[in-house]
Amino acid sequence: MKTAFIFVIQVYLLVLVQCVGNQFQFHPYVKFLKIHNSKKSYASQDLKVEDLIVYKGSQHGKKEADKILRLPGQPKGPKFNQYSGYVTVDPKHGKALFYYFVESTHASSRKPLVLWLNGGPGCSSVGGGLMMELGPFRVNKDGKTLSNNMYAWNKVANILFLESPAGVGFSYSNTTSDYKTTGDKITAKDSYTFLINWLERFPEYKTRNFYLTGESYSGHYIPQLAEFILKSNKNANRTLINLKGIVIGNAFMDDETQQTGTHDFFWSRSITSDEIHKGIVTNCDFSWNATLSKLCKTYINQEYDLVGNIDPYDIYAPLCLNRTSSEKSEFDPCSLEYIESYLNLPEVQKSLHANLTGLPGRWQDCNGELFANWKDQPFTVLPTIRRLMASGIRVWLYSGDTDSSVPVTTTMYAIKKLNTTVKTPWHPWYLKGEVGGYVVGYENLTFVTVRGAGHFVPSYQPARAIALFSSFLRGKFPEVINLMDHFYEIVVIRKINKEKGDWKHEQEP
Amino acid sequence: MKTAFIFVIQVYLLVLVQCVGNQFQFHPYVKFLKIHNSKKSYASQDLKVEDLIVYKGSQHGKKEADKILRLPGQPKGPKFNQYSGYVTVDPKHGKALFYYFVESTHASSRKPLVLWLNGGPGCSSVGGGLMMELGPFRVNKDGKTLSNNMYAWNKVANILFLESPAGVGFSYSNTTSDYKTTGDKITAKDSYTFLINWLERFPEYKTRNFYLTGESYSGHYIPQLAEFILKSNKNANRTLINLKGIVIGNAFMDDETQQTGTHDFFWSRSITSDEIHKGIVTNCDFSWNATLSKLCKTYINQEYDLVGNIDPYDIYAPLCLNRTSSEKSEFDPCSLEYIESYLNLPEVQKSLHANLTGLPGRWQDCNGELFANWKDQPFTVLPTIRRLMASGIRVWLYSGDTDSSVPVTTTMYAIKKLNTTVKTPWHPWYLKGEVGGYVVGYENLTFVTVRGAGHFVPSYQPARAIALFSSFLRGKFPEVINLMDHFYEIVVIRKINKEKGDWKHEQEP
Repeated sequence: MKTAFIFVIQVYLLVLVQCVGNQFQFHPYVKFLKIHNSKKSYASQDLKVEDLIVYKGSQHGKKEADKILRLPGQPKGPKFNQYSGYVTVDPKHGKALFYYFVESTHASSRKPLVLWLNGGPGCSSVGGGLMMELGPFRVNKDGKTLSNNMYAWNKVANILFLESPAGVGFSYSNTTSDYKTTGDKITAKDSYTFLINWLERFPEYKTRNFYLTGESYSGHYIPQLAEFILKSNKNANRTLINLKGIVIGNAFMDDETQQTGTHDFFWSRSITSDEIHKGIVTNCDFSWNATLSKLCKTYINQEYDLVGNIDPYDIYAPLCLNRTSSEKSEFDPCSLEYIESYLNLPEVQKSLHANLTGLPGRWQDCNGELFANWKDQPFTVLPTIRRLMASGIRVWLYSGDTDSSVPVTTTMYAIKKLNTTVKTPWHPWYLKGEVGGYVVGYENLTFVTVRGAGHFVPSYQPARAIALFSSFLRGKFPEVINLMDHFYEIVVIRKINKEKGDWKHEQEP
Repeated sequence: MKTAFIFVIQVYLLVLVQCVGNQFQFHPYVKFLKIHNSKKSYASQDLKVEDLIVYKGSQHGKKEADKILRLPGQPKGPKFNQYSGYVTVDPKHGKALFYYFVESTHASSRKPLVLWLNGGPGCSSVGGGLMMELGPFRVNKDGKTLSNNMYAWNKVANILFLESPAGVGFSYSNTTSDYKTTGDKITAKDSYTFLINWLERFPEYKTRNFYLTGESYSGHYIPQLAEFILKSNKNANRTLINLKGIVIGNAFMDDETQQTGTHDFFWSRSITSDEIHKGIVTNCDFSWNATLSKLCKTYINQEYDLVGNIDPYDIYAPLCLNRTSSEKSEFDPCSLEYIESYLNLPEVQKSLHANLTGLPGRWQDCNGELFANWKDQPFTVLPTIRRLMASGIRVWLYSGDTDSSVPVTTTMYAIKKLNTTVKTPWHPWYLKGEVGGYVVGYENLTFVTVRGAGHFVPSYQPARAIALFSSFLRGKFPEVINLMDHFYEIVVIRKINKEKGDWKHEQEP
């Protein structure tokens, strides 16, 4: 019962986090108290050799078929190649994962390959990461046309967005019972299977430096997938996938710190009262195998009543009310509504090579069925993170500091639990003369905050997000950044273009 | 030395707070370590009967002379009367205080009279409160023309802006040594003298319900002036000024809580590190008569280095860099530069009846000389606040929750020090479907937070600010507010106008 309760709270927070504008209200206990929790493990289960065996299918001719000529409503702008389509990961089940891939605007052959994963569990990387956060386009208010995203991450890398697991976005399984039995482990395996097959389809990327990134519940997905990749390489005794690092934003990694971090965040941001917070701190034990007291639950319910109707992904952002967006902030809080309209247009799905089989229902950003039936979620992935830190790959965490769903406090507490050593003390980093956030370097781990950013960091603070991502790719702390200079590869290209008399990209960041 | 050090820190914070865009850098020790501190008292000194004797001069014909026909660059908009000019408060010294008064847009004769005071000490209520925050106009980027402020507080009250003490803004003394000997006590007395004479000039307001409001260092000014008013009434055995209440925003009231609240704010907002914060908490004693250790000072210096170059009045706001304003936020961070240009135009000063005597130098938002020579500042005004709470007048405090200069934590700690009892527990209040902030009712005291507002609450969150102010005037908690309905007096007027077939004000909030 106790674990169910914890699961329920955290599950609420996650779906809420990833499903902006969905039907869930900002009260955790109304809808989820009856969810059965089958989570049994403390940490992610060890992978055995037989777990590493994955399906490989022929990819002949599929890359060309996946090429997107032009998306409906696409504006003029920088040129780059786009592809999207399905990769079968389990032919017996009829299970296929949908991806969208965009090559870098400049010198893509010299740029790394980066996989982006949204969280949930059950939420779409096409609706979230691609269309709302860091992709090359944003959907306009009309729900039919696109604008260029000045701070798209494909300015500095080739970005692959994956809808994972089956049931998310356009990804599907013909064995619909899969939707009731999915969990972390199968997600990692299917994502890995996708990657191996995708690299067959795009062989020029096979040896490319490869990075994993994403946010929220991908705090589970990414460490597990990274470990799958490293173990497969080790098992094969060669580099099947050239994984160099991971970077996760507002990462959900540990049930205990998710709880303590969230309650402390609400209190420390002057949102809940001293009395309620004291009640939680005094009466709640969120550690593994502890039992939550009735009094604890009462205080937590009171806390959520106190918080009121604010955007949990950014406590200072305007809400999307009555489908009329506020003009107050740079990021339109109704964005996901425009995206949902756009991705449900038949001509858009056609040009994306999506929904070829006539999926039931409309495209949705998050799949509540998957979420409610999630079968395998360890209490913590921190042991996995610790192993990745020891493996020598680059491990970064970042955190938008106005997010209440997986708040900065949660990440800080999780890092404390890792019991690592500070190597470079906490200090501000700068972008265009302003503090972009703060950064602290640990032994084999870097943590960066993004000032004034909510959960969806590239949405709320696009310039700071790409500065941070670009720093990660370089393997150097963000320090004093002039965005123009920072995109060093663009600068190189610009020089080349200048010699050719071609200045068309001069105005880009 | 210890008190000097505390004074220095807090003095830095205050001037910084009130002097946006001035020459002070966000580092406390560079400029102020040599300031001599003559502060000797714990709390404000008791007023004696002889202290209450004030100068009264003839005000005959002065009201008419003060009437403003039209301000340069003033747009069309709601009609209201504006006045401004000087009131002599000490003829021997040649000391005169400058005011600007705006009557309410509707039914001004039935609306209360409200005095607004900015802080500093040494900062202008015309530059701050009037032009940047809650006045009827905002100065445009050209520094020459004005726009209507949709959320001006004269929609619900008659507002009097006072530049106080002499030396602030357009206020002056011909005895310039006054600028080196000013402090809290003389400010209260001169402000009171101003009020008594101003009410002679505007006798129709003599019996009107009267409220004091302001922000920052007016956390000192307002309680002291309120007490002066109440004692004068008592001494005269009649109501000379009909004071009904006070409401102070991000109020500086107590040196100790200012220190603890500020350091805790930086830490709890994930701006400074756990290590530095622990160093401060462990090594610093900010209480009355305690001595600050060298180690404490070292940690505080390190803390300010960590914070970096952010807007101390709103930790998430963009900065005004190189006189080019960012387009990212509703409030233009370069506003004060436009205001400074506007208020230095000869035609503006002429139409304001300001600077008739040829003051030396340009109009400045804050007077560093006054600030550096401030002679009388008690360690705390909480005993005064406590007496006001007991007097039966309405006492409210409010706090924009993203201000680091006099942060929400500071106010919460100060309230704790008052040792009052919660009557209505902490809960959210709403404006247009969004949480406007949180409110808690104590015995004889109400505290309201404004979500996502910095130090200058009416600048950063104008709609929430007027909703809160309007609630204060009604003496009712802000709860679920529809701004249109909330301006109940406007609604009454609108109904009257409707009967007359006059709907011209319908579109106002």
